[in-house]
Amino acid sequence: MSTLLIADGQVLLPEMEVVEADVLVDADEGTILAVGSDLATADETLDASGGLVMPGLVNAHCHVAMTLLRGYADDKELDAWLQEDIWPAEAELTSEDVHVGAELGLLEMIKSGTTAFADMYFEVPEIVDAVDDAGLRARVGHGVVTVVKDDEGARADVDESLSVAREYDGAADGRIRTAYMPHSLTTVGEEYLRESVAEAREDGIPIHFHANETTDEVDPIVDERGERPLEYADELGLLTSSDFVAHGVHVDETEIDLLASRGTGVVHCPASNMKLASGMAPVQRLLDAGVTVGIGTDGAASNNDLDMFDELRDAAMLGKLAADDASAVSAETVVELATKGSADALGFESGVVEPGANADLAVLDLDAPHLTPPHDLVSHLAYAARGSDVRHTVCDGQVLMRDREVLTMDESAVLERARQYAADLAERAA
Amino acid sequence: MSTLLIADGQVLLPEMEVVEADVLVDADEGTILAVGSDLATADETLDASGGLVMPGLVNAHCHVAMTLLRGYADDKELDAWLQEDIWPAEAELTSEDVHVGAELGLLEMIKSGTTAFADMYFEVPEIVDAVDDAGLRARVGHGVVTVVKDDEGARADVDESLSVAREYDGAADGRIRTAYMPHSLTTVGEEYLRESVAEAREDGIPIHFHANETTDEVDPIVDERGERPLEYADELGLLTSSDFVAHGVHVDETEIDLLASRGTGVVHCPASNMKLASGMAPVQRLLDAGVTVGIGTDGAASNNDLDMFDELRDAAMLGKLAADDASAVSAETVVELATKGSADALGFESGVVEPGANADLAVLDLDAPHLTPPHDLVSHLAYAARGSDVRHTVCDGQVLMRDREVLTMDESAVLERARQYAADLAERAA
Ligand SMILES: [Zn+2]
Ligand SMILES: [Zn+2]
Repeated sequence: MSTLLIADGQVLLPEMEVVEADVLVDADEGTILAVGSDLATADETLDASGGLVMPGLVNAHCHVAMTLLRGYADDKELDAWLQEDIWPAEAELTSEDVHVGAELGLLEMIKSGTTAFADMYFEVPEIVDAVDDAGLRARVGHGVVTVVKDDEGARADVDESLSVAREYDGAADGRIRTAYMPHSLTTVGEEYLRESVAEAREDGIPIHFHANETTDEVDPIVDERGERPLEYADELGLLTSSDFVAHGVHVDETEIDLLASRGTGVVHCPASNMKLASGMAPVQRLLDAGVTVGIGTDGAASNNDLDMFDELRDAAMLGKLAADDASAVSAETVVELATKGSADALGFESGVVEPGANADLAVLDLDAPHLTPPHDLVSHLAYAARGSDVRHTVCDGQVLMRDREVLTMDESAVLERARQYAADLAERAA
Repeated sequence: MSTLLIADGQVLLPEMEVVEADVLVDADEGTILAVGSDLATADETLDASGGLVMPGLVNAHCHVAMTLLRGYADDKELDAWLQEDIWPAEAELTSEDVHVGAELGLLEMIKSGTTAFADMYFEVPEIVDAVDDAGLRARVGHGVVTVVKDDEGARADVDESLSVAREYDGAADGRIRTAYMPHSLTTVGEEYLRESVAEAREDGIPIHFHANETTDEVDPIVDERGERPLEYADELGLLTSSDFVAHGVHVDETEIDLLASRGTGVVHCPASNMKLASGMAPVQRLLDAGVTVGIGTDGAASNNDLDMFDELRDAAMLGKLAADDASAVSAETVVELATKGSADALGFESGVVEPGANADLAVLDLDAPHLTPPHDLVSHLAYAARGSDVRHTVCDGQVLMRDREVLTMDESAVLERARQYAADLAERAA
């Protein structure tokens, strides 16, 4: 057994208590063996002195390759932004572009302490390959859209989604899991949803889709069907305890109860919801009802970064505004949502520093003005820390970044490739 | 004449265009001499290659010494937070605490590219002294509260505010300017406002106060006086073109017109407004009406950091949500508000990189995943950059930070002192 010791730091325990302790990791199994003092010596040691060992952050909704479109178009109405900028650019994306964009996003994640994520995009084999090399954990899927396609195109999209989900589940030594990912209830036809839900269930594949993001998406369903979007989703069999939906901004009490009773997770994307003026998700109400809530960045085009520390802050602040209550969505809450909450939504045994859990960890450097004084480190994680405070990143027991040097990727080569491919893409899409 | 050349970078011009250029600075006068290529050699050079030279950010509303209370109490209703936590702790603050807290905040500002700020607090001589040593630019004042005091106490508070404003205007080689700072319209009695406004006017001192932050503050004025708070303020003579108010969350059309016609600046504090669930300021409406808008962090206890890049992002995102329009409060807008807008509100000739302006500058390192690809650098400033991307900070022509090493302060000593004083304070206040 090969072991890793994360030594001499403070450790954030699952109950949000901070203690001085070492963390011993089984690097072969990729799990945490022990948290405490006087642990065994290890084959490799990471210095956490002056730092905080915490669960790696889990980005529960992303489109990682969209980093290639970071800053490509901003500050436009959602429809114009999609139709004039994002979709035309995406239509030009090659499989190589997706690989290069995914590498850029994965590099950014490692450097900001994110160790696992969920991703919905196309050219999924490229994303799988990049995740395998970078060393992160992910639940990936092919985003299905049928409404703008003819029967043959729609059929092919649905088939690709299912085949990708089947082929790559368990890839990268088990770090890759998959999901069936219909884009949303309004962009995938009912017949395709019914059919492929049945197939996904047979294979035990979870389902992840965008839901109730904007009123423009909710209102037509209510008008046409006389029911709320998540009631429609439930009839289709889309809400089980292994499924998770992105956004859930405009949900009513009936839908909140439905999510709670089915055990379906909701991934809150506060930055994207603000930047696209979509609205404020009722996060405190979801939590009060017992819904599993995770946190995600959404794609870099609507964020514009993948730094989950921004999302912690945004979630805590927007949650208070949505509840009209400064005591809502506390610091402890958002730290838990972005670690255990997201991991639960994705079905990973990550997001907690305790024996038996996946050794997916980040070590933060606390010796900085914005994290001083240390009245409350959990408050600092929620409101003041940022990705650049991360000193080491560990996933599945492997050190991905040591002293801010990323070990699994050639950082300058990734940046250079991203600049070149992004410039070419912008030229083609212009 | 001693000169400073900021060489080989890209430069953000006032019209939000980015060009390749050098910036030549008169280090004695503290002003920008030229922006262009083939400039004269200089006594000192800062390497901006791979970087972006931009105006230093201007934090137009702060209580800098409150960094000592960062994370001290969070996630509580405003009244309980003030009465149970913040005010009891502030009652224990000594002048030394204020000095130590100010140093911590100034260090954080320098490290995140802020070069000027407005500050309302007490023990102002300590803040002046810390600013003088650190090398930043500030407009400072003593925050007056009379309502909870007897006549003698109120009188003393008003007198201190006026005497501090008179004594320190022009201190630190002119980098310190002052303002008369009544805390708000509800915490300072009308008679004191009338009297000291008259005195401040005679001395040509601008006035800065909190206004229209919460409905709890607005409603009693409307109920008692039958007019809006800013109508009351205007009758008192509180709204001139050199004055500026913090927050302006709950302002109606009459008040927006009044602010525009008087030329009074509004300092938007998006993070504080979200964290305290105060509401959403109508920033796009203020701008459309022609109001001068700046951006501020407010104190670290309601933020919880002084990184103005967070405020850019928050202002752009919250502005869209408030306007229910994803095209509102654009990236260009928030970059301009946090530089020239804030500088205009404070009455500083800063916030632009052009000849004649104050040489208050930040140089950002662009070679990072979250700032790649470079489709649009202004978008990156608004949505993706963070204080830790700042490589050099210059104020009044002096280099305050070079390659992330702060030259005017002993960073580890400041952090150590802050930890010690904060721990002592927490013990006394407990
Ligand atoms: Zn999405
Ligand atoms: Zn304030």
